[in-house]
Amino acid sequence: MAPSPEDPRFLRSRDAIVGAARELLMTHGPGAITHARVAEQAGIARATVYRHWPRTDQLLAAAMATVPMPFFDAPGTPTRDWLIRELAAIARQLDHHDVRVVTTTLANTALWEQDMDARREGFAELLTARLVEALEEARARGEVDLRTDPRHAAALAIGPIYYRATIEHGTADDAFITTTVENLGRWR
Amino acid sequence: MAPSPEDPRFLRSRDAIVGAARELLMTHGPGAITHARVAEQAGIARATVYRHWPRTDQLLAAAMATVPMPFFDAPGTPTRDWLIRELAAIARQLDHHDVRVVTTTLANTALWEQDMDARREGFAELLTARLVEALEEARARGEVDLRTDPRHAAALAIGPIYYRATIEHGTADDAFITTTVENLGRWR
Repeated sequence: MAPSPEDPRFLRSRDAIVGAARELLMTHGPGAITHARVAEQAGIARATVYRHWPRTDQLLAAAMATVPMPFFDAPGTPTRDWLIRELAAIARQLDHHDVRVVTTTLANTALWEQDMDARREGFAELLTARLVEALEEARARGEVDLRTDPRHAAALAIGPIYYRATIEHGTADDAFITTTVENLGRWR
Repeated sequence: MAPSPEDPRFLRSRDAIVGAARELLMTHGPGAITHARVAEQAGIARATVYRHWPRTDQLLAAAMATVPMPFFDAPGTPTRDWLIRELAAIARQLDHHDVRVVTTTLANTALWEQDMDARREGFAELLTARLVEALEEARARGEVDLRTDPRHAAALAIGPIYYRATIEHGTADDAFITTTVENLGRWR
């Protein structure tokens, strides 16, 4: 009989498997996530890994889900200060190997796998929606004259930080982040 | 005896292997590039594939090298027009599946593989060097008052286009590209 999801043995082996998959992803990359290697790393029978995650892409998704993706908190005022704070937090997250691994693995695997592409799209849309909301409220309050359509704002504000982290392997310092915020519009 | 590099049979099998590796990369992703699958796809003995490329990361690199990476042409004047033209060309390249595959595979694999990381670094440095050169010449000619250190310019100009293509899966239109160029400084 298959274990129930509340079975403590199930939960222990589940945690061991996800931990092993995460370790393989961080140390060797997504190509290292196979049932055989995850089972070996977790010290668990291969059949148990298959029972919980029949496909390797499910194992990869479970490993990726252990790393929180960068997001915007609820908008605060003044919007300019809030935005600098939020982008600095995203830049700090993108200084970490595990966040670079998960974001670049998502961008890469989304090109072939439907589930990953849905995740990518949800991630991009949430970032845009939160930023559009904050910028439109700031405009309504007279805090800013926007230089472009707010729907471009996520790419203009996060794009440079993402490129710096994942292509240049550098850090977005305070001056760099302030520049991206100034680029969105004229703040009063 | 191993074939000489000028042997036509060597060149034919080499082309077939690289073509097969490229096809697997574009259709299924970097994880599909194994000696067995490349040999099957190319209709060539597995031992021949091993003889030319002993490691899978070399097969992947050969497949990636078939796709030209986005670059800047030699600087032209007026610099603002040149830059808009060059960024529009990069954006058009990033609309293509094969260029998205190669850039996101590079960003991902560079996190674990030294050769890929050297490629990533060379790519990032060439883009920055070409842009720094063009912007410094533009400044010397009085074409622009730069808003930031020119070493940030690549991330500020290409980052939004790269994010739009690889995270948002959208197109950078002319207005979007003009905005990134205006963001670099005050053009006269």
